[in-house]
Amino acid sequence: MITSASNGKIKTIQNLRKKAKYRKEEKLFIIEGTRLFQETPKELLREVYVAESAENSLKNELIDVKYEVVSDNIFASICDTQTPQGILAVVKQPMHSLENILTKENPLLLILEDLQDPGNLGTIMRTAEGAGVTGIIMSKGCVDIYNPKVVRSTMGSIYRMPFIYLENEEEFAGIFRQLKEKNVVTYGAALMESKDYDKYSYQEGTAFVIGNEGNGLSKNALTLCEKYVKIPMCGQLESLNAAVASSILMYEAFRQRRLETL
Amino acid sequence: MITSASNGKIKTIQNLRKKAKYRKEEKLFIIEGTRLFQETPKELLREVYVAESAENSLKNELIDVKYEVVSDNIFASICDTQTPQGILAVVKQPMHSLENILTKENPLLLILEDLQDPGNLGTIMRTAEGAGVTGIIMSKGCVDIYNPKVVRSTMGSIYRMPFIYLENEEEFAGIFRQLKEKNVVTYGAALMESKDYDKYSYQEGTAFVIGNEGNGLSKNALTLCEKYVKIPMCGQLESLNAAVASSILMYEAFRQRRLETL
Repeated sequence: MITSASNGKIKTIQNLRKKAKYRKEEKLFIIEGTRLFQETPKELLREVYVAESAENSLKNELIDVKYEVVSDNIFASICDTQTPQGILAVVKQPMHSLENILTKENPLLLILEDLQDPGNLGTIMRTAEGAGVTGIIMSKGCVDIYNPKVVRSTMGSIYRMPFIYLENEEEFAGIFRQLKEKNVVTYGAALMESKDYDKYSYQEGTAFVIGNEGNGLSKNALTLCEKYVKIPMCGQLESLNAAVASSILMYEAFRQRRLETL
Repeated sequence: MITSASNGKIKTIQNLRKKAKYRKEEKLFIIEGTRLFQETPKELLREVYVAESAENSLKNELIDVKYEVVSDNIFASICDTQTPQGILAVVKQPMHSLENILTKENPLLLILEDLQDPGNLGTIMRTAEGAGVTGIIMSKGCVDIYNPKVVRSTMGSIYRMPFIYLENEEEFAGIFRQLKEKNVVTYGAALMESKDYDKYSYQEGTAFVIGNEGNGLSKNALTLCEKYVKIPMCGQLESLNAAVASSILMYEAFRQRRLETL
């Protein structure tokens, strides 16, 4: 049983929990709780840690699983949640290729530019799975998807939704060129001089481009988009929450695509 | 200038910040930041506090405003945000009547049962303003809308969206009777045995009934609803985030209502 905070494995977990750069180098991340543990594909599981007091109640989850027991106070110190469920795992980052994401037929894509809020990104990925999105492409400036708060709020979609980070502005611009070649229309979400989002047909290849929470899409991204959509708003609101706006766009596309197949 | 944490006014602010019961008794709440301060109707403003170091830069905001200066360290201790903008106010709670909410013509209402997450409630109110919702009715078990985190995430909608809390289960059941009398159809958001949400027309009086994040609508609430809607989901998702689900429903109603008026 691990009982010391200076144990090397505990230190590794702390680094994976707190440091995006370390996660990227090691290609690993941390998950907590029985639900996410159950959803983790076996081939991605690297190490499993169980709190001393939880070992008995987790018996069914732990059949055929190699794990180490950790004393309760050390376990609490490595968890991100305030009420940990007694199980934590080190998991290999799922790897997706841009080619794979871009070769899907009649794709429904999201391109996210510099999205900063962990809860927003997780919620967008969760909703994207529901709406049948085929892949998520993120600019280098987006929050790390392996941030423990993002991982939790994806509700397991992180294992099922293909996604990729772009490394720089050239790659970002390159995506728009590649999509144009494949006749996938890029729709920038913008407040000004845009048509209402429900005036377009999204039954062909579609990519919604969503900007940063505070600033919206950058000038550069706006220039790259082929068309622009706005979500009309009553009242005196300046904007919608980024996850809400993305969800409304994705579900409008999904609504239209379901109509087509009736 | 206030320089002591034991100052009576500082203690009142702390109570208003932390205690829902105290807020309810005093019919007051706290707002922070220049943006929310600007959106606060003058007639609701009770007291204004400004951080010593921010007084000069806030000059334009403070024209014709009576305020007290607070030393920076005390000011930081009364703020809920980590980077306070140097202005905080005690504000009277806006009062709405059920009669007023229910007498609007062709209403688009939200009924929320035991919604627990402050960020969700604030986001729902913000989106509701955008979608032209005419009022929000909340069960007694919903999180307090005057919780500082909810207030912030409404982005000012708290001043513009009529809302009311019900005091008990009888009042909750009573709402459904009153809506039926007025031919307002109540649509319970439920996963089982429901029609897809986009198969109904919401051009007449509509009330969406949304349940608790973890458990969905209670059996009691489900019995009270006239119809049921589900949001279809691809993949292996069990549910959508409550704020996202509400937003998709509200914006579908808004989409249909805009079509009608073209």
